[in-house]
Amino acid sequence: MLSLPIAMLVEYLLLQMVFQVILLSTDRWAEKDVNPALFSRELMRNSSNFLNDEEVNRDPQSLLMKAHAATSSIGSATVIIAMLEKTGTLKIASVGDCGLKIIRKGQVMFSIYPQEHYFDCPYQISSEAVGQTYQDAVVCSVNLMEGDTIVSGSDGLFDNIFDQEIISIVSESPGVDEAAKALAELARKHSVDVTFDSPYSIEARSRGFDVPWWKKLLGAKLIGGKMDDITVVVAKVKTVAAPEDEGGDIEQQQGDEQGIAVAVASAEQNEE
Amino acid sequence: MLSLPIAMLVEYLLLQMVFQVILLSTDRWAEKDVNPALFSRELMRNSSNFLNDEEVNRDPQSLLMKAHAATSSIGSATVIIAMLEKTGTLKIASVGDCGLKIIRKGQVMFSIYPQEHYFDCPYQISSEAVGQTYQDAVVCSVNLMEGDTIVSGSDGLFDNIFDQEIISIVSESPGVDEAAKALAELARKHSVDVTFDSPYSIEARSRGFDVPWWKKLLGAKLIGGKMDDITVVVAKVKTVAAPEDEGGDIEQQQGDEQGIAVAVASAEQNEE
Repeated sequence: MLSLPIAMLVEYLLLQMVFQVILLSTDRWAEKDVNPALFSRELMRNSSNFLNDEEVNRDPQSLLMKAHAATSSIGSATVIIAMLEKTGTLKIASVGDCGLKIIRKGQVMFSIYPQEHYFDCPYQISSEAVGQTYQDAVVCSVNLMEGDTIVSGSDGLFDNIFDQEIISIVSESPGVDEAAKALAELARKHSVDVTFDSPYSIEARSRGFDVPWWKKLLGAKLIGGKMDDITVVVAKVKTVAAPEDEGGDIEQQQGDEQGIAVAVASAEQNEE
Repeated sequence: MLSLPIAMLVEYLLLQMVFQVILLSTDRWAEKDVNPALFSRELMRNSSNFLNDEEVNRDPQSLLMKAHAATSSIGSATVIIAMLEKTGTLKIASVGDCGLKIIRKGQVMFSIYPQEHYFDCPYQISSEAVGQTYQDAVVCSVNLMEGDTIVSGSDGLFDNIFDQEIISIVSESPGVDEAAKALAELARKHSVDVTFDSPYSIEARSRGFDVPWWKKLLGAKLIGGKMDDITVVVAKVKTVAAPEDEGGDIEQQQGDEQGIAVAVASAEQNEE
């Protein structure tokens, strides 16, 4: 455990590292002549703005509520908001099928599950009354340790890449930047590989989806990656402050270490 | 959200529902002429005793630390401690391969991952210095809602039963008692079924374990349930109090509803 100088402490408390707001709009809005990116971009911008609001900047669910209320664009999006506090507590609010996994000592030790109405139809924060709200979020927190890696991303990532691949890439990458890029690239590669038995195709078969009967007779099965936009955020915990460091006497910290390293990578995909 | 009368509130705060301490000892200790049940039973007893200790009764990790320090038996055990607060926050500390899943609206929305040194060798709290401690625990919390079902159990449960089976049993059971018994019985049945492609055998194959090459040539593959002791705890959230009910004016609650319903079931299995 490392303690932090006061200046850095204040910075931490202010920033609280909302390291990720992943927002995905669906194609339904494009059909209605609505730019599907507008809603998610505005929701993301509002979430960032409210980071300085003391009332909500320690609570991702309240932040989501405020950001949603302040968003006037038409559209909908799945969303995950994660805040890392300097003591190592990662607070998470998630609506829909974004994912977040914690890798510790070469193992997935924590993971957020997708919420959906039915297969491939995720919960979504929406401009319409029929959508979900902050009240539908999965809200949880997890205590992180030095060395833990956070891998978060859109369904386009986790539908196309297995846990073991994520673990390998994280362990082999020299830094979070390389890891994020490698994860996005591998997911993109798998997403367009019609012969890859992806997590998505395995899940689809387990839900009873399959190729037509006549193809089945020929030995075919539902297989392949899932074409989708892919966003990846990788963060690594470098230092964790002891809980008592939140106030009172603060010792000087050696060096210029930051408490977390973050990298974002994405791969856009057009389904048409 | 329902508010609670003061008497019930106090009861809640005192009890704080440590609804589960699952402890499993390994056969290694039996080989050393140590009764493998002693360590886990004492650790469980100590955990229960410390529930009245204000210093640790809101923090499962600290409770585990104290209970471990007070345990003098020889042995080791995997352990999960979960505390449900009246506001619906479930606090969890887990060392090893016990599991806990939250079922909400027919979906798994939260799950604890097993920690292991290598396949089938879980982290364990131990009387020996080589074992793990409270510091190795996965520590997290999740906000529960009315109607959520908590399914927790030993690896003997989750190695023998799929998420979809858990969801079906939970949704079809009239109460937690029936659900716990049905889960334990199905897991037991699968555990002795050498033709069942269990989560355990799928995981084993994915880690590179398999039948000898000559059996492979005959089309055989590593398959079957996993013989093990099975413990299941099922709990259902009936009411959740609003955060402001923790102090101040409390309105009267209608009826005699309890905040949670809990049932435990187990199936013992002898591997010899």
